[in-house]
Amino acid sequence: MNNYHTLDEMVTASTAAFETMSKIPDKNRAMLLRDMASEIEAIGDELLEMASIESNLPVVRFQGERARTCGQLRMFADLIEEGSWLDVQIDTAIPDRMPLPKPDLRSYKVPIGPILVFGASNFPLAYSTAGGDTASAIAAGCPVICKMHPAHPKTSSMVASAIQKALAKNLFPSACFIHFEAADFAEVKALVQHPGIQGVGFTGSVTGGMSIYEYARERQQPIPVFTEMGSVNPVILLPHGLASSTEVWVDNYAGAITMGVGQFCTNPGLMFGIESGVLHDFMDSLADKISKAKAHKMLHEGIYANYEKRKEEVLHSRGVITLSRVQATRDMSGSPTLAKVSSAHFRENPRLHEEVFGPFSLIVVCTGIDDLRDSLSLLNGQLTLTIIAGDNDEQEIEVLRSGLVNKAGRLIFNGVPTGVEVCNAMVHGGPFPATTDSRFTAVGNNAIYRWVRPVSFQNWPNKLLPPALQNENDGNIWRNVNGKLTKEALT
Amino acid sequence: MNNYHTLDEMVTASTAAFETMSKIPDKNRAMLLRDMASEIEAIGDELLEMASIESNLPVVRFQGERARTCGQLRMFADLIEEGSWLDVQIDTAIPDRMPLPKPDLRSYKVPIGPILVFGASNFPLAYSTAGGDTASAIAAGCPVICKMHPAHPKTSSMVASAIQKALAKNLFPSACFIHFEAADFAEVKALVQHPGIQGVGFTGSVTGGMSIYEYARERQQPIPVFTEMGSVNPVILLPHGLASSTEVWVDNYAGAITMGVGQFCTNPGLMFGIESGVLHDFMDSLADKISKAKAHKMLHEGIYANYEKRKEEVLHSRGVITLSRVQATRDMSGSPTLAKVSSAHFRENPRLHEEVFGPFSLIVVCTGIDDLRDSLSLLNGQLTLTIIAGDNDEQEIEVLRSGLVNKAGRLIFNGVPTGVEVCNAMVHGGPFPATTDSRFTAVGNNAIYRWVRPVSFQNWPNKLLPPALQNENDGNIWRNVNGKLTKEALT
Repeated sequence: MNNYHTLDEMVTASTAAFETMSKIPDKNRAMLLRDMASEIEAIGDELLEMASIESNLPVVRFQGERARTCGQLRMFADLIEEGSWLDVQIDTAIPDRMPLPKPDLRSYKVPIGPILVFGASNFPLAYSTAGGDTASAIAAGCPVICKMHPAHPKTSSMVASAIQKALAKNLFPSACFIHFEAADFAEVKALVQHPGIQGVGFTGSVTGGMSIYEYARERQQPIPVFTEMGSVNPVILLPHGLASSTEVWVDNYAGAITMGVGQFCTNPGLMFGIESGVLHDFMDSLADKISKAKAHKMLHEGIYANYEKRKEEVLHSRGVITLSRVQATRDMSGSPTLAKVSSAHFRENPRLHEEVFGPFSLIVVCTGIDDLRDSLSLLNGQLTLTIIAGDNDEQEIEVLRSGLVNKAGRLIFNGVPTGVEVCNAMVHGGPFPATTDSRFTAVGNNAIYRWVRPVSFQNWPNKLLPPALQNENDGNIWRNVNGKLTKEALT
Repeated sequence: MNNYHTLDEMVTASTAAFETMSKIPDKNRAMLLRDMASEIEAIGDELLEMASIESNLPVVRFQGERARTCGQLRMFADLIEEGSWLDVQIDTAIPDRMPLPKPDLRSYKVPIGPILVFGASNFPLAYSTAGGDTASAIAAGCPVICKMHPAHPKTSSMVASAIQKALAKNLFPSACFIHFEAADFAEVKALVQHPGIQGVGFTGSVTGGMSIYEYARERQQPIPVFTEMGSVNPVILLPHGLASSTEVWVDNYAGAITMGVGQFCTNPGLMFGIESGVLHDFMDSLADKISKAKAHKMLHEGIYANYEKRKEEVLHSRGVITLSRVQATRDMSGSPTLAKVSSAHFRENPRLHEEVFGPFSLIVVCTGIDDLRDSLSLLNGQLTLTIIAGDNDEQEIEVLRSGLVNKAGRLIFNGVPTGVEVCNAMVHGGPFPATTDSRFTAVGNNAIYRWVRPVSFQNWPNKLLPPALQNENDGNIWRNVNGKLTKEALT
């Protein structure tokens, strides 16, 4: 599996690394994250080529993905250097308060311990070995045990070696990042249930994510388990929005549905329109574009087999009409496919509400805005929801508003759900089954909060406090002092 | 049970109330919270007397508890009016960014839905019907279904009526707060597992909390379950700390152990000292004080029976020596008790590591600082850890530091763990089994974050955004705009 002989040995090493990491200043972790990025870049084109070979995706895709991966690592470096993420809260003492003195209380965030990371097959760089989960966990001060995804073992190993170089260069214990090839599901289960593991990050299918989650549920000690699973990413096509720029939306959605062979967690798998001439024009044009799109090889045999199976299941469901040309499929190529169904048939068949992972979308034809709202309400939680609207659709938006907010982590207006910006305001998460904990995001700066908890210090002498909590505020960070945000030192 | 005929009907009403609450501005919830406080105060001394009758605690205790309860409600009112708790994150668009435009993204926190609250028997006001869980959930915009604690049904009903008056006065649906008397455990289980329930707050014993947690684990949809359970609240007596003011610590700890008949989740149940003359002096004096402390009636028969059982179990364990005078117990009176044990005996018996809920403390006599650290490391997660230290104990503190931080939510220096200040920097939480989710606090402003999740709006027209995310910042709240905290409007 790696240079550890047993799972116990591996977790013990990770726990020891956690102890050591806890004593290293934050700024050293920032340097480590930057060196992780540099070492990944230093591998050169060989990495992109290997990722392409292992994923059947073009090399150019990995130029972008590498930039995203390294950008993420550097973003977290900036975040921990800036320091406000520590969420420092200070309430100073009032010794003469009646009837009891008020103590001095100061809290900040500390890392929770070894994190187990399961990367996704569809982003061999950005959501895998050195992806968002690893970057945010290391940034928080947690060591990572990363289960290598079997779909890209060589890419994963190359990235793991780069991380080891960065650890060595910055004098961090090698066990701050452990790359692990699971022999079987039993090993995965044993690891998820190991008492030393203090958190789990997963990106992938509902089936995979729920297995991990079920393993974790059997633990004696509950731990944070953040699994980012499937999503159908519904798109709502409001009449004026569609009418005002039909061709723009046809182009955008033909792209969003087929890009990366549809293998994105934010792929638009369901679209809801209201019966009208403009909807039919849109469907006709989109079907035409989708029919002309080329079938490309999917990530691996399992994903291809599942795509074919789920696609056929949906296409053969009562009331579903295939709109795009049926292409012969072979050699693991996922053929782009568009279909439609009436809201009545859609409502009665929950299998149509679920993801078909691949270049597939189903358009639900509704009779009006109330029918659309009610059809939408049957769906499970989602990563994203998108509205295509025009100036005169405001009333419809108000009808839908609470249904939208309660259903998804990110609401897109006149755009496509694909493309997950790495920034402060990104929420890549959402109500179950989009994730197992909707209170957190898997992408962006705030992903770090999955792996930390608050600790409060009561009446400690200034010099014995952690530096971020000391009066001086030498790090010049934003702190909430007696209810006011300030960077000022306490006097 | 109440005016709902079935659990389904009750949860449906709560869900409908959630929809309505979502459309009411935050400032109205602030007014509601203030009126909840005023209506509780308006009940007058009758409430304090009833709480005293039902809990066997003196009326004076409830003057303080009512002040705390109402103060908490008003604190949350201030919090939501001030607005920064919404955690607004704004990243503005960069339309000409290459290779892809950067979208405009704006996120804030939204409530998650109906919350089920289980109050504690030991705080009939501050941690029960209108306690911290109810106050924080309502503040977040979540309706509450509160399971009445059977130890104080009349107190609970009086408070529930006050809440109903406040709801009516502010034109909120009555189902924003539902007071519920469970017929049996089956009803509790059915409610925890009801698909409409979106979060659970519990304060009480490990047994009770873990039952709730186990019910929740069987749900199809995972939901936030925050149970604040037992804690032994270890106190570390370092040599110089003890020597410098032995009598002060004897007085403080005699008080902390016996106050409220020891029925506090922060009661100091374990003390770790290092074998020395000063430790023996401390033990002798403390035993003397504890022997002189009067036995008082406990909260209810179950707590009394459990105290007697657990106390006897510990006192009869191998190596445990009773230090205080043995008092005859009767009429549900919990007799204050102090005992000691060597670290060797302590280490080999995990039952000694667990809480004895009542006026009881066990002193573990260690051979040195390393023995103390290693003995401490065997403990489960705690709400609090306290150090009694002098100027020359810094080296010992460094030996213990990471063990302290990783073990508890709040670290007290030269004080007692009892007394949980309601403020920003309070962390009333901690690693399992202190709570089931150490990333949150049950007390203080930040308790609100248990019941919210982030939602991001991408490329929405300004006028269709929620007010807190609009350019104008009419609420004048702190927002993170492109990585900078500011109250300024966007231009």
